Amino acid sequence: MTLPPEFSLIARHFRPLAGPGSLDLRDDAALLTPPPGKQLVLTVDAMVAGVHFFADDPPDQVGRKLLRVNLSDLAAKGATPLGYLMTVSAPRGTPDAWFAGFASGLAQDQAAFGCTLLGGDTTSTPGPMSLSLTILGTVTPGLSVHRFGASAGDGIWVTGTIGDGALGLQVALGKLADGSGFLLDRYRLPQPRVGFAIGGIASAGMDISDGLVQDLGHLCRASNVAATIEAASVPMSEAARRAGSEWLQTRLTGGDDYELLLAVPPAHEPALHAAAAASGIPVARIGRCHAGPPSVVVEGQRGEALAFDKGGWSHF
Amino acid sequence: MTLPPEFSLIARHFRPLAGPGSLDLRDDAALLTPPPGKQLVLTVDAMVAGVHFFADDPPDQVGRKLLRVNLSDLAAKGATPLGYLMTVSAPRGTPDAWFAGFASGLAQDQAAFGCTLLGGDTTSTPGPMSLSLTILGTVTPGLSVHRFGASAGDGIWVTGTIGDGALGLQVALGKLADGSGFLLDRYRLPQPRVGFAIGGIASAGMDISDGLVQDLGHLCRASNVAATIEAASVPMSEAARRAGSEWLQTRLTGGDDYELLLAVPPAHEPALHAAAAASGIPVARIGRCHAGPPSVVVEGQRGEALAFDKGGWSHF
Repeated sequence: MTLPPEFSLIARHFRPLAGPGSLDLRDDAALLTPPPGKQLVLTVDAMVAGVHFFADDPPDQVGRKLLRVNLSDLAAKGATPLGYLMTVSAPRGTPDAWFAGFASGLAQDQAAFGCTLLGGDTTSTPGPMSLSLTILGTVTPGLSVHRFGASAGDGIWVTGTIGDGALGLQVALGKLADGSGFLLDRYRLPQPRVGFAIGGIASAGMDISDGLVQDLGHLCRASNVAATIEAASVPMSEAARRAGSEWLQTRLTGGDDYELLLAVPPAHEPALHAAAAASGIPVARIGRCHAGPPSVVVEGQRGEALAFDKGGWSHF
Repeated sequence: MTLPPEFSLIARHFRPLAGPGSLDLRDDAALLTPPPGKQLVLTVDAMVAGVHFFADDPPDQVGRKLLRVNLSDLAAKGATPLGYLMTVSAPRGTPDAWFAGFASGLAQDQAAFGCTLLGGDTTSTPGPMSLSLTILGTVTPGLSVHRFGASAGDGIWVTGTIGDGALGLQVALGKLADGSGFLLDRYRLPQPRVGFAIGGIASAGMDISDGLVQDLGHLCRASNVAATIEAASVPMSEAARRAGSEWLQTRLTGGDDYELLLAVPPAHEPALHAAAAASGIPVARIGRCHAGPPSVVVEGQRGEALAFDKGGWSHF
């Protein structure tokens, strides 16, 4: 009794990714005993060829990006990765090598970040490759971080450098030069800030995926605070600096950063620096929350409010 | 500060579906306290327009089917629904009324089956509508049912009638008449067998989604048993009977039944009948497991082995 091709494909490429609770992908569903005394953090992201990645991107990078954008959400909640479920809707005729590359990228990153495959569904599609990944993480009750919770007076902080992903997309589109390849790498391969122990330190937090200004707007709305940030304080990479100041709006409103955006009460700053140092993650304060209706003001060099066409990415 | 259209769409249509743990869909992730003393059952399914449903199917039925195919997987494991995460990758220009109808179908069925939305992701796609749904259920440790576990001598049982969904697809394709609309309904709207307390009764189980013969093959492989079923014992609806005997192969190898396929030791048959009666679900024995390499034989009226072109659906 031979396996139909769909199931043989799953056995070849995806079974090696399966971990505890997956029942070796031989069942309809995973069976998980939740770690005692922990809460679960759950999030899901979809990625579509032609929207979130290019159809000819290296498949291992597509797999790694799919996992990493979700790991980034967990990191922003202060959660530890546990496992994931995945759907792959692939055009008929997708070469076996694509699946092999995709799975090898997942294998590499699930080892690096400590999670395994729990289950999935593989289907065909008459459209572009469409992927989704649901990830589960664990957090100690009381130590999860949310978009809500920021107060007037809290500093606004980011990890790493902002805008590289958005500039990398411009590189991919042929609109910007990138001699080192740094920006394109940043677009293709987010660096989720897993392991940054922000629980009990940040009053609010999220990852920056749709553009700093728009995402800060989400945090302000959820926390019912206003925010002012200084454009010059937003950390930029050397490659972004070389791109020039005409890319300021792209940097601050473009997507694909996957850095963390945190609100931190001044009294917690020493703890923030200690946690950042412990995990080797650079942090920078870019502004402050203040009382008022939810709003985001970006100040230029002379304290003037900068106006942007849009705050960030919207699919519709 | 107005919401970008993507987030206003989520607020309008999906926030009303959100329940405990969802943080009102205002955060990056859900936060769930697992029910103490329970295990979690997790499963995911993708649905693509043009593959799993027709682009012009009523949107409320698309929503209900998306939820129900996953509920069916939970039912097959003996699990109780808890909550779900969802991705919607929609073509740009999808009318607001489609999202409203889709969400109303989900609302209706999540009330009927007892689960709520935990989180999701809404994106655009240049291709057909692509959906995924990850569902979580709970089960008492030791009472979950799996594809593995069947033994020689166990009866093979199914719920309801088999083949209506596959015939309904033929109706939708204009290849079969269906005066009553019964078959088309069965294709569009599965009836997940949620609430059938099969834990401790069935030695193995799964739902039939890709065709009885192929799915029984999965159960045999996972359980390392052979199976023989009698074609004449496989329950069929009145509408399927009217379609005629030339549809036998379609009925036994077509997909979209979403009935349960169970292996039940003879000693558990009284308990099976009691559980079936308690939930009003008809069950029928269609064959038996026996020792031998994994295989599925379908016997005709005179005990001859029937040959089919294929056992069921494969996406590739």
